[in-house]
Amino acid sequence: MTTDAALRATTQNSLCPIARTTSLISDSWTPLLLRELMVGRNRFAEMQSSLDISKAVLSQRLRTLEDNGVIERREYQERPPRHEYHLTEKGWALWDVLLAMWGFGDAWLFRDGAGMEIVHASTKERVEPVLVDRNSGERIDVRKTRLRIRER
Amino acid sequence: MTTDAALRATTQNSLCPIARTTSLISDSWTPLLLRELMVGRNRFAEMQSSLDISKAVLSQRLRTLEDNGVIERREYQERPPRHEYHLTEKGWALWDVLLAMWGFGDAWLFRDGAGMEIVHASTKERVEPVLVDRNSGERIDVRKTRLRIRER
Repeated sequence: MTTDAALRATTQNSLCPIARTTSLISDSWTPLLLRELMVGRNRFAEMQSSLDISKAVLSQRLRTLEDNGVIERREYQERPPRHEYHLTEKGWALWDVLLAMWGFGDAWLFRDGAGMEIVHASTKERVEPVLVDRNSGERIDVRKTRLRIRER
Repeated sequence: MTTDAALRATTQNSLCPIARTTSLISDSWTPLLLRELMVGRNRFAEMQSSLDISKAVLSQRLRTLEDNGVIERREYQERPPRHEYHLTEKGWALWDVLLAMWGFGDAWLFRDGAGMEIVHASTKERVEPVLVDRNSGERIDVRKTRLRIRER
């Protein structure tokens, strides 16, 4: 992959999609918080107890995700007002990032064979996340790629 | 996806591959540092200048990656001793996580159409990272999956 000055900025204004996503989720709690939401823990108390995270930190992370359109609040009780946090379409799209993390972690961080598997709900067949090029269906070799600025 | 008490631990000993990978790379600098190494910036001064990161922080992140077998040092000059940092096989495997971040960022964080593309070095065809199930070749719908403890 060749490089470009456009990669330089490390903020959310960088032209690099990795940099932008990093500024959104690269926090030691956020991927786990997204995981909780994906498995159906949508209430503050559930997430707090499951992750053993402080209320202040959890509130702050949820606010950031809400501000970025990754989650939205839904009231499930009026008096007193209580709400749940639900992933938006944008939030569900982060599933691919979590799946890629799953694939790496499963392959490289469980050398003793312990661990978990993802299976299809109906067939119980094992699901193995793998990243491919949408067009060719083949694995992407970083050393055979280049970057270019997109023409508008 | 159903849940399990095995997901609970948030440390590097969790049975959840997402949790383990989080503890390895979920830091606002580490994904960008991995990107630098993948595009061929292997020397301390190059990375420091490209990322505009403090020497102390860069040293610390490189040490963590080295301790975890993600990168290795190679001496390229003897007197005075100078070395470069290179990704190991395990380090290159993180490319999939970065590609998934790329895919999400490109789809959701560039609504104005600006941005970059990954292209094949030879054909210049656009590469579009997408996550599929290795066996079926199809996208993975989180709502149709379950988790189970792997049998050894």
